[in-house]
Amino acid sequence: MTYEGYEHLIDLVAQGDEEILKAALAEIPAADIAEYIDQNFEVYSALALLDKMPSDQQAEVFGYLRPNNQEELASHMEVGVLAQLFRDMSSDERADVYALLDVKLQDAVMRRLAKREREDLLRLASYEEGTVGAVMTSDYAAIPLAGTVGDALKRLRQSAPEKETIYQTYVVDKDHRLQGVLSLRDILTAAPSETIEEIMTRDVVVLKPDMPQSEAARIISRYDLIAIPVVSDDDILIGMVTFDDAMDVVEEEDTESIHKSATVGRLESGIKDASPFIIYRSRINWLVLLVFANIFSGLGMMYFEDTIATNIALLFFLPLLIASGGNTGAQAATLIVRGMATNDVEKKDWLYMLGKELLVSVGLGVTMAAAISAVAFFRVDPVIIPIVALSMVCIVLVGSLVGVLLPFILKRVGWDPAVASAPLVTTIADAGGVLIYFGIAASFLTLTPPA
Amino acid sequence: MTYEGYEHLIDLVAQGDEEILKAALAEIPAADIAEYIDQNFEVYSALALLDKMPSDQQAEVFGYLRPNNQEELASHMEVGVLAQLFRDMSSDERADVYALLDVKLQDAVMRRLAKREREDLLRLASYEEGTVGAVMTSDYAAIPLAGTVGDALKRLRQSAPEKETIYQTYVVDKDHRLQGVLSLRDILTAAPSETIEEIMTRDVVVLKPDMPQSEAARIISRYDLIAIPVVSDDDILIGMVTFDDAMDVVEEEDTESIHKSATVGRLESGIKDASPFIIYRSRINWLVLLVFANIFSGLGMMYFEDTIATNIALLFFLPLLIASGGNTGAQAATLIVRGMATNDVEKKDWLYMLGKELLVSVGLGVTMAAAISAVAFFRVDPVIIPIVALSMVCIVLVGSLVGVLLPFILKRVGWDPAVASAPLVTTIADAGGVLIYFGIAASFLTLTPPA
Repeated sequence: MTYEGYEHLIDLVAQGDEEILKAALAEIPAADIAEYIDQNFEVYSALALLDKMPSDQQAEVFGYLRPNNQEELASHMEVGVLAQLFRDMSSDERADVYALLDVKLQDAVMRRLAKREREDLLRLASYEEGTVGAVMTSDYAAIPLAGTVGDALKRLRQSAPEKETIYQTYVVDKDHRLQGVLSLRDILTAAPSETIEEIMTRDVVVLKPDMPQSEAARIISRYDLIAIPVVSDDDILIGMVTFDDAMDVVEEEDTESIHKSATVGRLESGIKDASPFIIYRSRINWLVLLVFANIFSGLGMMYFEDTIATNIALLFFLPLLIASGGNTGAQAATLIVRGMATNDVEKKDWLYMLGKELLVSVGLGVTMAAAISAVAFFRVDPVIIPIVALSMVCIVLVGSLVGVLLPFILKRVGWDPAVASAPLVTTIADAGGVLIYFGIAASFLTLTPPA
Repeated sequence: MTYEGYEHLIDLVAQGDEEILKAALAEIPAADIAEYIDQNFEVYSALALLDKMPSDQQAEVFGYLRPNNQEELASHMEVGVLAQLFRDMSSDERADVYALLDVKLQDAVMRRLAKREREDLLRLASYEEGTVGAVMTSDYAAIPLAGTVGDALKRLRQSAPEKETIYQTYVVDKDHRLQGVLSLRDILTAAPSETIEEIMTRDVVVLKPDMPQSEAARIISRYDLIAIPVVSDDDILIGMVTFDDAMDVVEEEDTESIHKSATVGRLESGIKDASPFIIYRSRINWLVLLVFANIFSGLGMMYFEDTIATNIALLFFLPLLIASGGNTGAQAATLIVRGMATNDVEKKDWLYMLGKELLVSVGLGVTMAAAISAVAFFRVDPVIIPIVALSMVCIVLVGSLVGVLLPFILKRVGWDPAVASAPLVTTIADAGGVLIYFGIAASFLTLTPPA
């Protein structure tokens, strides 16, 4: 009985029976309907499909759509319909969609909302992107401090339809200051006559609206919470972040830091939707910067021009050696950067991690030197073997240490350590590799009498 | 009122007042106590701290500890205490800890459990790592099909303490076959006299025990669900996966695929805990493989030995050009691999993505060629400029196309596309870069009369 609403919808729309389609839509999860609309996007058929659903389902489906499709649909809707959609959407999704509209449409919709909705929308839309304020919802359940468990349950029953979750309830005083939290489980297992004050949890994990979203997601995941309240500096309850928002944030943050590790800048949409120009723009800056950074490797080559010209066989091992430094360094950097992102590795661990990497990289270097010596044995003048083997150990060592230290240094100076992955480490390791290899070769080959 | 139990605990333990500590522990979230134990791990003080908590809190804290610390503590506990811990732990965490114990201890604990717990434990422990079965819990709430909403609520109230969540309830027939699902919100907003059959949702998204965990996490995140039921092939309800398990899975999967992208193999523990040998082993195989793969670049250099020897200035641009191909390719591969991981990009999109990358990479290549020409202008014989610029465009083009295609090819042959990131793409792009650069140089320099 695995449910695949998406395939089901394709069949239904193809059949073209309005009544059957309408009845079926009620049973299909909003996420599946939204995927169908996104994958087969065409403004008028999407509007026609939305029109077949009750208004609360319309709002739910709309909330799942890709932002560019939301924008397109909103601009083709009658203002009255759009305003109704806004009324039915959850407060956080409403604020996201509002931000997509052009100023004229924003005004038109705003004028049709009730004063309370208007204020709520303006407040949520005012938080900076990436902060807790921009992802929180104001559809939380709150109850006054005075009262019994029975009162609380009655209130929750009444307000359930318009709340994002009723499984966490926030207890507030008359100034709306957060005093405690009650889970629905607490409420159900207590006697109806007990007071709220008696059974509520007073030590509450809270968020602030200006915290980064990633921090909120980390806290939700750490404490396995369904939702966390957001309070202002004077403890006034202003919102709530739910676990599903946290999951979306984690996915977004991970995408961003993975992209950064390959020097790709911020992409607002997925790679499939992004225009070629947007993709170009997200990639070109770092690439050009790295072109210039690689000049150092070139200068290294020039410096050893004579060594190379008289021992052209050295070149055979060049790509292999410098790639090895880059690869080992990229491994080390990736391990540290991920460790930092998951809070496994902290700033203070730098010396410990460096020491461990020293051990590991000597092992890696010696093994790789053995591998390259085996290659060298069949290819070249045996005099080159010790040069190549020694270079390999040194290059791997330097690459690894750069890989470990760079993320710590970037973090120290306030940059995102995620930038420290492959390309940057590789560029530094390349330049180091050229100098080490030809430096060792030059000194060895001077000592050895010419054949 | 932001809550930081961890710092609080450090102070309390330092003060050394047993009674105050005991009282305070009850208020500190289990995740914080576990962090304190993990960060300051010492077997006997950890056991002493656990001993100050009621047994259900002990079990909760124990579940949050790092696996190697769990193992260490379990082997130092009296068997009776360990068995009690097992009774109080949630069924999925219990199975995880059980798998860590040595066979003798497994036997000893098993003999002290009741028959039902024993069977449950053996069943959960039997699922392969990485599958839904290995992460699911059997502490779900289930109610029979016959009955009213009032009956359901009464049952949930009674069973609440031992269930992982009561916010989703599964409706089963007399053979324990899943018939529908009820949220606690549905139950609370319905009239007590309505029947369960009337208000339950029949179309249920379900998981199978042999599905990969990542698939389960994707489904939970897609539908914003608190929990999903797991059913056998004949629809019998056997477990449940909750949102917090899904969040842990996402974090683990992301870590693994990020490590893979830098050719780091599977690490069971975090990088900070892993021993140098374990880290060495997770990295060496790919590194040695890449050493041999880079021989192709070396062979390319040898093939053009004469061209290089007579135009040694060409070498200045070599690191720069081949790094550019690798960097562009790594960007393209990273974008595709992440797109695949988030289901944004599918197998069928390969031609579309390739076409778009063609456009993007021509843009990138031309810009980078302009940058390198500017460098060349100041450094070398002008005759080299068109060689270098043309090489840059070709190398960036080839690197990008390799970066886009490799993930699709790996996926096609059933490998994990995450392996296709930086190092592998760079290695291929390096060899291509050497051939393209010196190939172009050789043909240009033959056509141009020697100075």
